[in-house]
Amino acid sequence: SCHVLDLNEPIIDHAEGQLFLNEAFKILMEEVLCKGTDAKQKVCRYEEPEVLAKILDLELREAGEPHEKLLQRVRDVATYSVKTCHPRFFNQQFSGVDYHSLAGRFLSESLNTNLFTYEVAPVFVLMENEVLRALRFLVGWTEGDGLFCPGGSTSNMFAMNLARYQLYPDVKTKGLWSLPQLVLFTSPESHYSVKKGAAFLGIGTDNVILVDVDDGGHMIPEDLEEKIKSAIAQGAVPFLVSCTSGTTVQGAFDPLDRIADVCEKHNLWMHVDAAWGGSVLFSKQHRHLMKGVERANSVAWNPHKMLTAGLQCSVLLLQDTTNLLKKCHSAHASYLFQQDKFYDVDLDIGDKSLQCSRKVDCLKLWLMWKAVGSSGLAERVNKAFSNVRYLTEKMKKTEGFKILNEPEFVNLCFWYIPPSLRGKELNEDYQDRLAKVAPVIKERMMRQGSMMVGYQPLGNKVNFFRVTVFSPLVSTKDLDFFLDEIERLGRDL
Amino acid sequence: SCHVLDLNEPIIDHAEGQLFLNEAFKILMEEVLCKGTDAKQKVCRYEEPEVLAKILDLELREAGEPHEKLLQRVRDVATYSVKTCHPRFFNQQFSGVDYHSLAGRFLSESLNTNLFTYEVAPVFVLMENEVLRALRFLVGWTEGDGLFCPGGSTSNMFAMNLARYQLYPDVKTKGLWSLPQLVLFTSPESHYSVKKGAAFLGIGTDNVILVDVDDGGHMIPEDLEEKIKSAIAQGAVPFLVSCTSGTTVQGAFDPLDRIADVCEKHNLWMHVDAAWGGSVLFSKQHRHLMKGVERANSVAWNPHKMLTAGLQCSVLLLQDTTNLLKKCHSAHASYLFQQDKFYDVDLDIGDKSLQCSRKVDCLKLWLMWKAVGSSGLAERVNKAFSNVRYLTEKMKKTEGFKILNEPEFVNLCFWYIPPSLRGKELNEDYQDRLAKVAPVIKERMMRQGSMMVGYQPLGNKVNFFRVTVFSPLVSTKDLDFFLDEIERLGRDL
Ligand SMILES: Cc1ncc(COP(=O)(O)O)c(C=O)c1O
Ligand SMILES: Cc1ncc(COP(=O)(O)O)c(C=O)c1O
Repeated sequence: SCHVLDLNEPIIDHAEGQLFLNEAFKILMEEVLCKGTDAKQKVCRYEEPEVLAKILDLELREAGEPHEKLLQRVRDVATYSVKTCHPRFFNQQFSGVDYHSLAGRFLSESLNTNLFTYEVAPVFVLMENEVLRALRFLVGWTEGDGLFCPGGSTSNMFAMNLARYQLYPDVKTKGLWSLPQLVLFTSPESHYSVKKGAAFLGIGTDNVILVDVDDGGHMIPEDLEEKIKSAIAQGAVPFLVSCTSGTTVQGAFDPLDRIADVCEKHNLWMHVDAAWGGSVLFSKQHRHLMKGVERANSVAWNPHKMLTAGLQCSVLLLQDTTNLLKKCHSAHASYLFQQDKFYDVDLDIGDKSLQCSRKVDCLKLWLMWKAVGSSGLAERVNKAFSNVRYLTEKMKKTEGFKILNEPEFVNLCFWYIPPSLRGKELNEDYQDRLAKVAPVIKERMMRQGSMMVGYQPLGNKVNFFRVTVFSPLVSTKDLDFFLDEIERLGRDL
Repeated sequence: SCHVLDLNEPIIDHAEGQLFLNEAFKILMEEVLCKGTDAKQKVCRYEEPEVLAKILDLELREAGEPHEKLLQRVRDVATYSVKTCHPRFFNQQFSGVDYHSLAGRFLSESLNTNLFTYEVAPVFVLMENEVLRALRFLVGWTEGDGLFCPGGSTSNMFAMNLARYQLYPDVKTKGLWSLPQLVLFTSPESHYSVKKGAAFLGIGTDNVILVDVDDGGHMIPEDLEEKIKSAIAQGAVPFLVSCTSGTTVQGAFDPLDRIADVCEKHNLWMHVDAAWGGSVLFSKQHRHLMKGVERANSVAWNPHKMLTAGLQCSVLLLQDTTNLLKKCHSAHASYLFQQDKFYDVDLDIGDKSLQCSRKVDCLKLWLMWKAVGSSGLAERVNKAFSNVRYLTEKMKKTEGFKILNEPEFVNLCFWYIPPSLRGKELNEDYQDRLAKVAPVIKERMMRQGSMMVGYQPLGNKVNFFRVTVFSPLVSTKDLDFFLDEIERLGRDL
């Protein structure tokens, strides 16, 4: 009854497979990288889910499909996907494309190895180490530790775990029941992963204490100190402050130096979530925004955001030199981390992570960095700031646009006020009507495929647009287009 | 003082960038995919870390480098990396290459989007949904939920979090302090991520209770039941049993049906860690190994292991239809998951995860599945079993090889006993000397680059080899070579 297989031959035909890969490569070059970066083409080709599902014929079946049909599938996936490399994709904190990074990504995918031992990843163990060293150097540390993580959220959660472990190493074996009630501090404008992390780590979101922010969205150190004292008075144990360098919506930088003073005074772990803003450290002109970062215990930084390194590329950097990361995370699996190997087993870095399989995320950043140098990356950061300045100034001069705050970073938050609402600020329904503007403009731009930008409410502020400008592919033409397009899509509202 | 930039032009030159990508593609085709899969070439080119660091010149500097130099770097990275696609790479639970999957991976990398909203990932939201449906169907569920995760470790941790939340939803806000002491159960041969998860989630490794296994490495349901009772008697609250389908070292399948009986009786969440073994579900012949899996609450399954889908490709599947995943993990970030969008916001699946950025890991599996069909994937699984059977029979007939157990799956664990040790089983230093054999053979094979296979101790068993055979590129020639090579490298020991 056993299906007869010819064991003597591999199941996969290399010539056929490589031909397919070659053809698929040509398609993605054409459809994604050429057309996708061409401002004359659409950013997206929106279809309703039911329609798209029908076009794509997603169902997985018993039988395989022929070569030509599969190539058509590659084409379809490319056609109906959003072109995040397009110069008019302003929707997220990633956009654009860097060809050196992309080459690094293709190479990582082909090599398909795992960053846990020197044995299977000799090049990448050494490379990750160098990239982490170079990033730490920008933070201001000549020593320390670190790890690439699957995203900034994970980096933030790992920092939380380390802070907790440093204070109470027993937590690893005994759990939280053996500890007093812990509390941590962050601002209401910090990334939602801080709360998700508190829930996941068993700390609970109620134990995330929100520190007030000023008008610009910066954590207020005086309020932090007060809230720490009041938590202590209530019997809780503060263990961590999670500051943000570059908040998600407004792009605010918390005042690190003054927060560090508070952390030192109360002996708290200072974490800096610089997932979004960390890249300013490349720029001599703008790195002052993170003044004091060298006093932090840990920094999370996503080169996949502002630096266009490609998803995912996220690091957690540590000032620690006591091997805390490994002590906190290790499980000493003997099938992977044998101690009787013929090389220095400190090179088997996998036990520093809570992951087992871990993708190689350093190569793409390394290759891109080698290609343009620190100076080239600094130039990109500077250009992003100049672009935002350009857009802001132009917006201020254009009727119908109202910015929330002078941008501190590369986020520009603004309302578009259609002619029908101008001068009606005092009407009772003004806020309600204004709240409905952004969603309609967004729908229109997506259906037309001309542009993508996100909107959201924040606190008591109704729906406004947040545009982030940093892709190395963006020019002032695209920013001029941006303003015109919002107006074109919204002026009848 | 501001460095003057021309804002009118993008910083990146497309023609130059695309030329580089083309050239890099040719190099990886040649060096990784052609040479790397050629049995006549080396699996690895081992260098001492200091030497390799010098060759690679990893340091990141101020200035960028020219085109030709960067291409040489691509070549160097390929040359000194381990060829995990090589037919003689038996070192891990991933190996081989599938060209359709690889094409899917290149396409995902080029499209560089994020699986959190329909808006930026329309194709992949629908596609992930279909892949999850098809995988759940193999488990035996016509409904349910699921998520791609950054590895099986994360999938296991998410399952643990869900189990805890279902029993005590308050944990999300109040933390573990509001809960009684929780305990979970697994076997000592389960993956180390179960313990890492317990530490990370604040439960503590002491609260992971290890259930005895039989000689083959299977959890003993009677011992499970006893340990549950005794934990309850001590005042703890059992909440989860983490079974393994395909243990990492021995490839054992825990008896799911009998464990399900115990879980039902005590109302415990039953999780099946099928990261390694899940792929047997494709095979009519072998899926009986997971009989009872349909009674589980959750299943973790890594197509990046046995199915050669490429790192990372890992799913968590759930039987739940009450939206538990979202309730447990959500944070309702208003900048991402606006509720006033123009399409059905249930398509914005991102809040089901604890990640924010989440890579597209479904496309590669989908494309490969489309290419060969369920029947083609079943054939690969069947072939892997036959290959292991072939190797086992041959090994049994070959002097100097001693297998630990009849393989149940595609792991074959064995000692190589060099002539000098044969017949000396009763000598006092036998075990000590045997323990030193595998590390030396391993060192030799790596220095010569002829093959890679892992070894480890387990319980009171000293270092033995574990070979996993499943790459679709492996033929019996390679297995014959495997035996000969171990002997060649070890017979003088
Ligand atoms: C400030 C901040 N922190 C953390 C994150 C999370 O990073 P990731 O999406 O890589 O998980 C983001 C991303 O939006 C962010 O803006
Ligand atoms: C049984 C089992 N579970 C979980 C894992 C972890 O999966 P990952 O490496 O994707 O985190 C492994 C991998 O070795 C495994 O063998």
